[in-house]
Amino acid sequence: MIRFNCDYSEGCHPAVLEALVRTNMEQTPGYGEDAHCERAAALIRAACDAPEAAVHFLVGGTQANFVMIAAALRPHQAAVCADTGHINVHESGAVEATGHKVIAVPGADGKISAAQVRAVVENHWDDVTHEHMAQPRLVYISNPTGLGTIYSLAELTALHDLCREKNLFLYMDGARLGYGLAAAGNDLTLADVARLTDAFYIGGTKVGALFGEALVIANGALKEDFRYIEKQRGAMLAKGRLLGVQFETLFTDDLYLKISRHAVDMAMLIRDACRAKEWNFMVESPTNQQFPIVPVEALKKLGEQYAYSPWAKIDGRREAVRFCTSWASREEDVRALAAAIAGS
Amino acid sequence: MIRFNCDYSEGCHPAVLEALVRTNMEQTPGYGEDAHCERAAALIRAACDAPEAAVHFLVGGTQANFVMIAAALRPHQAAVCADTGHINVHESGAVEATGHKVIAVPGADGKISAAQVRAVVENHWDDVTHEHMAQPRLVYISNPTGLGTIYSLAELTALHDLCREKNLFLYMDGARLGYGLAAAGNDLTLADVARLTDAFYIGGTKVGALFGEALVIANGALKEDFRYIEKQRGAMLAKGRLLGVQFETLFTDDLYLKISRHAVDMAMLIRDACRAKEWNFMVESPTNQQFPIVPVEALKKLGEQYAYSPWAKIDGRREAVRFCTSWASREEDVRALAAAIAGS
Amino acid sequence: MIRFNCDYSEGCHPAVLEALVRTNMEQTPGYGEDAHCERAAALIRAACDAPEAAVHFLVGGTQANFVMIAAALRPHQAAVCADTGHINVHESGAVEATGHKVIAVPGADGKISAAQVRAVVENHWDDVTHEHMAQPRLVYISNPTGLGTIYSLAELTALHDLCREKNLFLYMDGARLGYGLAAAGNDLTLADVARLTDAFYIGGTKVGALFGEALVIANGALKEDFRYIEKQRGAMLAKGRLLGVQFETLFTDDLYLKISRHAVDMAMLIRDACRAKEWNFMVESPTNQQFPIVPVEALKKLGEQYAYSPWAKIDGRREAVRFCTSWASREEDVRALAAAIAGS
Amino acid sequence: MIRFNCDYSEGCHPAVLEALVRTNMEQTPGYGEDAHCERAAALIRAACDAPEAAVHFLVGGTQANFVMIAAALRPHQAAVCADTGHINVHESGAVEATGHKVIAVPGADGKISAAQVRAVVENHWDDVTHEHMAQPRLVYISNPTGLGTIYSLAELTALHDLCREKNLFLYMDGARLGYGLAAAGNDLTLADVARLTDAFYIGGTKVGALFGEALVIANGALKEDFRYIEKQRGAMLAKGRLLGVQFETLFTDDLYLKISRHAVDMAMLIRDACRAKEWNFMVESPTNQQFPIVPVEALKKLGEQYAYSPWAKIDGRREAVRFCTSWASREEDVRALAAAIAGS
Repeated sequence: MIRFNCDYSEGCHPAVLEALVRTNMEQTPGYGEDAHCERAAALIRAACDAPEAAVHFLVGGTQANFVMIAAALRPHQAAVCADTGHINVHESGAVEATGHKVIAVPGADGKISAAQVRAVVENHWDDVTHEHMAQPRLVYISNPTGLGTIYSLAELTALHDLCREKNLFLYMDGARLGYGLAAAGNDLTLADVARLTDAFYIGGTKVGALFGEALVIANGALKEDFRYIEKQRGAMLAKGRLLGVQFETLFTDDLYLKISRHAVDMAMLIRDACRAKEWNFMVESPTNQQFPIVPVEALKKLGEQYAYSPWAKIDGRREAVRFCTSWASREEDVRALAAAIAGS
Repeated sequence: MIRFNCDYSEGCHPAVLEALVRTNMEQTPGYGEDAHCERAAALIRAACDAPEAAVHFLVGGTQANFVMIAAALRPHQAAVCADTGHINVHESGAVEATGHKVIAVPGADGKISAAQVRAVVENHWDDVTHEHMAQPRLVYISNPTGLGTIYSLAELTALHDLCREKNLFLYMDGARLGYGLAAAGNDLTLADVARLTDAFYIGGTKVGALFGEALVIANGALKEDFRYIEKQRGAMLAKGRLLGVQFETLFTDDLYLKISRHAVDMAMLIRDACRAKEWNFMVESPTNQQFPIVPVEALKKLGEQYAYSPWAKIDGRREAVRFCTSWASREEDVRALAAAIAGS
Repeated sequence: MIRFNCDYSEGCHPAVLEALVRTNMEQTPGYGEDAHCERAAALIRAACDAPEAAVHFLVGGTQANFVMIAAALRPHQAAVCADTGHINVHESGAVEATGHKVIAVPGADGKISAAQVRAVVENHWDDVTHEHMAQPRLVYISNPTGLGTIYSLAELTALHDLCREKNLFLYMDGARLGYGLAAAGNDLTLADVARLTDAFYIGGTKVGALFGEALVIANGALKEDFRYIEKQRGAMLAKGRLLGVQFETLFTDDLYLKISRHAVDMAMLIRDACRAKEWNFMVESPTNQQFPIVPVEALKKLGEQYAYSPWAKIDGRREAVRFCTSWASREEDVRALAAAIAGS
Repeated sequence: MIRFNCDYSEGCHPAVLEALVRTNMEQTPGYGEDAHCERAAALIRAACDAPEAAVHFLVGGTQANFVMIAAALRPHQAAVCADTGHINVHESGAVEATGHKVIAVPGADGKISAAQVRAVVENHWDDVTHEHMAQPRLVYISNPTGLGTIYSLAELTALHDLCREKNLFLYMDGARLGYGLAAAGNDLTLADVARLTDAFYIGGTKVGALFGEALVIANGALKEDFRYIEKQRGAMLAKGRLLGVQFETLFTDDLYLKISRHAVDMAMLIRDACRAKEWNFMVESPTNQQFPIVPVEALKKLGEQYAYSPWAKIDGRREAVRFCTSWASREEDVRALAAAIAGS
């Protein structure tokens, strides 16, 4: 069985592993106050063209999301996101557990628009009893989204402008950010993301690291005392240097983007194989996740050798599924899957 | 200006006031451990035919809702309600502030059905990653709803049966319960409500009391240590006997239902006046809230003498509004409003 | 049985009751946005010589404490108080339930000093790992304390200066504030309190009101969006005008201080009777609570006619107890108690 | 500079590293539902003689503590611990951030006794107003404590018996459990710990793992839905197998205890060197942390080559410090430190 069901089936990229092995017996201070974290942060600031940004390394994405949101909001404030947003449906109520409402709006292919956020805000503030409603204060987006789609520069700029106008923080969950940056048609750079959001994280767990996410906080108002809240929520790794070592490696010689491109190239092979079969897609994704709608008999056969994620029942004869590639996908495995699709 | 915009514009029913005046200089123990609370609880248990129920008196409805929900749920559990549910839209995120997600489903005229709740639960449990989603554990309904509609005995029984089947608590917000029980077409009794829910509250603030709600907990699993949580959330009134005195009065000689009927009768006068003008309604309500769709020029004129709540824009020429009656509505004022509607 | 066990055994002062009766059928807007609340707030601002202060009316003291603290602190911040502080021992963990640690320091007769707070802060900030400790950010004091003692102008000024120096908020729980202001030896005015604290509340429940506390927020940084958090925590009374009417009455013609003086005068009669018996006191209190150490046989006899609060076992022969007076104490009852003490 | 300031300066034991390298490109399911986690859990159950225990793998100790406590308590319930307890002073208010009070009692060398816990519980339940106090429900101990001391079988049994009698959960923080089990004079086994506590964790981060703790839940009442709460608090690692692989290695061929013994042996060399100088100790510790009281001039010189943790000022001439050893301490480094102490 070859697994294409998610993008965190393996450990880490060989270069990251090598760095962990090489530094294993170094003695360093704890809690992210070591030279590796310092260098990794500097590399990330440079890659983001954000010399003033704060960079913190956390272990996982759910953690990064709720720690940042808890640090940003006062008790009565809420996060706005797409109904398919990870914080709304796949984190067991983690944001609510910090006391904050998540206001979900119907997403289009996983994305929300500036116009939708404007409507939420205006609905709130126009109401004579706005104090009886949770106050929208932060917009959460994922890029790529959980459906593999990406925001354009124009869309992100519109969200940024709206957030400035309405006094909202804009936060991007970048669990798969590399796969978005590497997508055909993407016109965003890391510097754009750092400039247009108040905070975002660069996902490592799904993009080459053993584990870990790099949170980049550009807005000065969000920096104060962040480490307290990180510690309080169990998100400050004792051996913080493990995260520094990994991101140091990923941001040297453009490794992060190189391995992201590989994953996207592999995904395109799968997409093309599905298209050749004239299968439709749940959503058009230019990134490492592909959501074809597959005849059940073909699916049954494919499933004997290749793991996929079930996604949605379409009708009695077809089912939507997810195939994921990653930095770890071997071209021979992907071509074997493509051939199997062709032959199904 | 005569106010029909809400049902808590005045103080309390004269009999309640008289009781408060009469008992004012009595010396009693605090925190609801006095003879008045004891008698009021006994009267309510009798009215509900629920001799084993725990009865607690709280100051307000938002408080009753989140204290009960916080007492019932473990951290990862969620409340399911209609999208128009009070806890979802009008309590500033009070339930989330206790750490729990509110899962909203599209309501039909403010109500949710057993089938909708079943779908939420099955969607949760069928998912292979249910541990990544907040767990539905309590169903919140209002009766009457915020739109004035009421649940039938059949509908409530279906919800009850589903909740037993799926291991959910069923909780009813009865802020306007009297007005529901007094409605034409209602086939629920207090005893039915006590039998079919795990907990509910009998609203006093909007139905004759100066302030206060009587929470009735029938399910033994929800009784333990409730008073701790009540105290912790600021919901235990030092002079608890003030609540006892009021509910003692409201549940003597059927006062609660009598004054509820008056309010509903008054609302029907308004409804009939609107019908005579052939105005449509946002929703058909048999209770004390009426939601006619009114031509804007008529509305402008009515608004000079009668306060109403704006509800929704319909089109350029018409607007939906809310007129409320209550125990305090004077028939002469209501007839004057009806005449003004007729003449508009 | 005549009750001296606490200061909330009765309803409210006759003038307050008369005002509630007189205004009962007025129609007003809800949620504290009525003319009574507006006038009451203006009277309080004038009494405090604090024209810019925000004034909010809440139902009870536990509520006032945790709503104010939740509104003031970020998630990692803590409140510092005496170990006997109400928030530390008598509120069922209400502050912790909003997510904040309470750092308790040993109180001297219920009070804490600027030097003690300085030590807490310096212990925190000197530590190399301060991010691993909850951050002290607010100082909670009661005046009078739960032991009846009061802060002097010099003591409060020292706390104020320390709080400015160390970037802490100073918050005073004034559940019995009137009884402190009326005490012999008190050199604080309401204006001093408003000037030297960031926020405090003027207790009504124990000082003439049926229920209710007036929270005065002098520090502009604490005012923003307070009403959201009040609503979210169940502390915004639907018929907010009930609180306005009461405080309007209490702050007209100096009623609040007049009735406070009466209570203190009555307490001094009890104190003098105990002193005449050469009983010691747990603590010297100039306010309405007295804590004599009473021989058990005398106590047994007194207890047949007069309710008191048990406080602490001293030895096999003596017990410390609390006698409370209030605005409601009748001189004849107090003199009867004093005579019983004399005759014991 | 050779670091003896803490026990998490290096990465992981070579055998653990080798296992991570060897399994790096394996494809496994996520979230701890893989074969490595399954095997590691089985090995731990066997080592604990607890075939029914639930075993969960978390990333860090703060996380393990607050996730377990949040899962165990209802909102009004509190954890009791020593004033020096890690949850009380070094976790930034993490337990309070989940809504629960921490009740601290003065520890003797970091430990609390059954008698102290009994006093807390009886003080709570004897009070007539117990509902106004947070309810003690869980006892938190560390073994070894933060001061390096250990509980005897008799002490732990007494705590266990008291907890059964008073309906309390007993939870042990075992961040350095191996170093306790390996100490001279220790009479506890893993099986004793599993039998006498309701839950405890076996620390990996400080004892050979790269990161990670193994939480063992023996009490069935604490098992239900634990994974939801783990996920909700950000404690469920996507690549959970990383934790499985590490604990699989540590619990094969007794590696966990072997490397623990080494650390303790090394600590004894430091202790003996200090004793030879006739330095006193803050506390007598038989484990990997040593707290000698060192003359400042000696300390200054030692500090030039060896990192230690400052602990407490004693007087103008002496200072208490902490030297830590670990699985990673090289004997040659330790002997060099011992020689430097001898020569100071």
